[in-house]
This record gives sequence, C-alpha cells and structure tokens, in this order.
Amino acid sequence: MLAIRAAVAADFPAVLDLFRRIVVSGDTYAYPPDCSPEQAQRWWLDPPARPFVAEDDGRIVGTYSLKPNQPGLGDHVANCGYMTAPEFRGRGIASVMCAHSLATARDAGFAAMQFNFVVASNTGAIRLWQRHGFAIVGRVPAAFRHVRDGPTDVFVMHRLL
Amino acid sequence: MLAIRAAVAADFPAVLDLFRRIVVSGDTYAYPPDCSPEQAQRWWLDPPARPFVAEDDGRIVGTYSLKPNQPGLGDHVANCGYMTAPEFRGRGIASVMCAHSLATARDAGFAAMQFNFVVASNTGAIRLWQRHGFAIVGRVPAAFRHVRDGPTDVFVMHRLL
Repeated sequence: MLAIRAAVAADFPAVLDLFRRIVVSGDTYAYPPDCSPEQAQRWWLDPPARPFVAEDDGRIVGTYSLKPNQPGLGDHVANCGYMTAPEFRGRGIASVMCAHSLATARDAGFAAMQFNFVVASNTGAIRLWQRHGFAIVGRVPAAFRHVRDGPTDVFVMHRLL
Repeated sequence: MLAIRAAVAADFPAVLDLFRRIVVSGDTYAYPPDCSPEQAQRWWLDPPARPFVAEDDGRIVGTYSLKPNQPGLGDHVANCGYMTAPEFRGRGIASVMCAHSLATARDAGFAAMQFNFVVASNTGAIRLWQRHGFAIVGRVPAAFRHVRDGPTDVFVMHRLL
C-alpha cells in the first residue's frame, strides 16, 4: 500500500541512497553523478526544500522535494523534483507523487509550479507532467550533457495551481 | 574611463550597497527587496558566483555576477546577472558588462549563457540582451510579482558562446 508523507530525519539515509542511484545514471538530472551525500542533502533535503517520501510496505520507493523556484518576488512559484527507485518503476509512483506535490504546494500557498530542467529525451516524464496539467513553456538547446546521448535539450514546464 | 575587473573583497561593501539599491525597487529582480547583506553576498559574491565590477574614475557604477546555471551535467551553461547604479543608467554600462561577461564565460569554458528570469516589462534589458545575441527561448506566465504592476511574465533567454 503506497503512502506519501513528509520525510523525517530517519528517512534521510534511504533518500540519499535513492538520490545517488538516480543521479549516477546521468540521464535525467543535472546533479553531478558523483556528488557527495552532503551536496545531495543540501539540494534535496535541507530547507527551504521540503522532502517527502513514497513508502510501500515500509520501503522507501520514491521521494520528491518541493521548494520555491525563486526567492522573494518569485517565491509564489514552486519547484519540485521526483525520484522513483528504478526497481519500482512502471507502477505509477511518480504520478501519485506528482498529484501529492501539487496538493501540498497549493496548501502551502504557491500559485504555480515550474520545472526548470526536464530533459527532452525523458519522454515518459514529459507525458506524465502533461497529464498532470503542465505545459512546455520553454526549450533550452543542449543544456544537458546526457551521459550517453551527449548534448540534449531541456524543457521548462509550468502549470498554475 | 569605464573599466571592468573582477571584484575583490574591498569592493564587497560597495557592491552590496548597489545590490540593495537595485533590489529595493522590486521591478527587475526576484531577490527580496528587504534581503540582508548576508543573503546578497551569498547570491552575488560567494562561490560558485564570480563577481565583477564596472569602475568609472574609482567609483563602482555597475556589477555583474557569473556562475554555472546548473550543477554537474548542466554546468557548461553560464548564468549571469547585471546591475547598473541608477544614477549611471543610459551610458551603455550594462552593454559593456554584458560583452565582458560573454568573453569571460567563453574563456572559462562555458558553451552557452542562459538568463532564467528576465522580467517581461524590462523591455530595455530584453532589447539589449537581444543585441548581444540572446534569444527568448521560454516565457513563464506571472512568475514575477512586480511591486507596482503585480503578476508579470518572465522570459528565459539563451545564447551559445
């Protein structure tokens, strides 16, 4: 039974392990594939980021991290990242996390959500975000160095809340 | 005689004062109009940002801050912000700083430069960046709370180096 909840300190080692397993593949996130747990904690777990976990029978199978996309006069727009454990893909976990994050962001008073760096070759994710109401509002040429495919475009995606 | 050079620690108080005078107007940057010098220093002066100053007869009349736009697999794209002292506007200082920053970024090995948050009502800046080779590659609706005009669109601008 999948449940989404705010991450607590006891979850951090499992979340950092999941983070490492995702970024090491170098195909969806800009985070350095060899980044340290301290860097990962700063990007994903520490304030102003608010980390959540998707838990299934006591196992952490996914995580998302919600934060303001800009400080100050841009902090009404949320930003969110999602990671699903590779062995739990294809079960709709990212979709459940996305829906949860949209509700969380709305409750927190955000007026919109923006993704700054959706890798163009990550077509499954793009379709999923579109099903959750996001539109492509920008395309940055060759902004991602995909570890296998090389220079790859990046989409900016957005939806109002 | 206008000269652009890397900022040194002795410049920081003047740069932070200029930063404060720009952001307090709330019409071009998301930075909180009431942010602290410590926040400003972290955003504009501390690594990985590389701050520069435009100096005219010993006075600091402008500053720019260059950094990678993303970590890791996105760190070949630079990001830069520019501030000109209000009393020195209209003299082409931003244009000189932009040209200098493009050369600096190229020398540092960046392959492109991206602006994430160009306020749509800042038409003078948009035209200036276009003259320097930047194209609008995205438009985010209402991402900026302009202190007088309210919700205002934001452009993503980009050029290869």
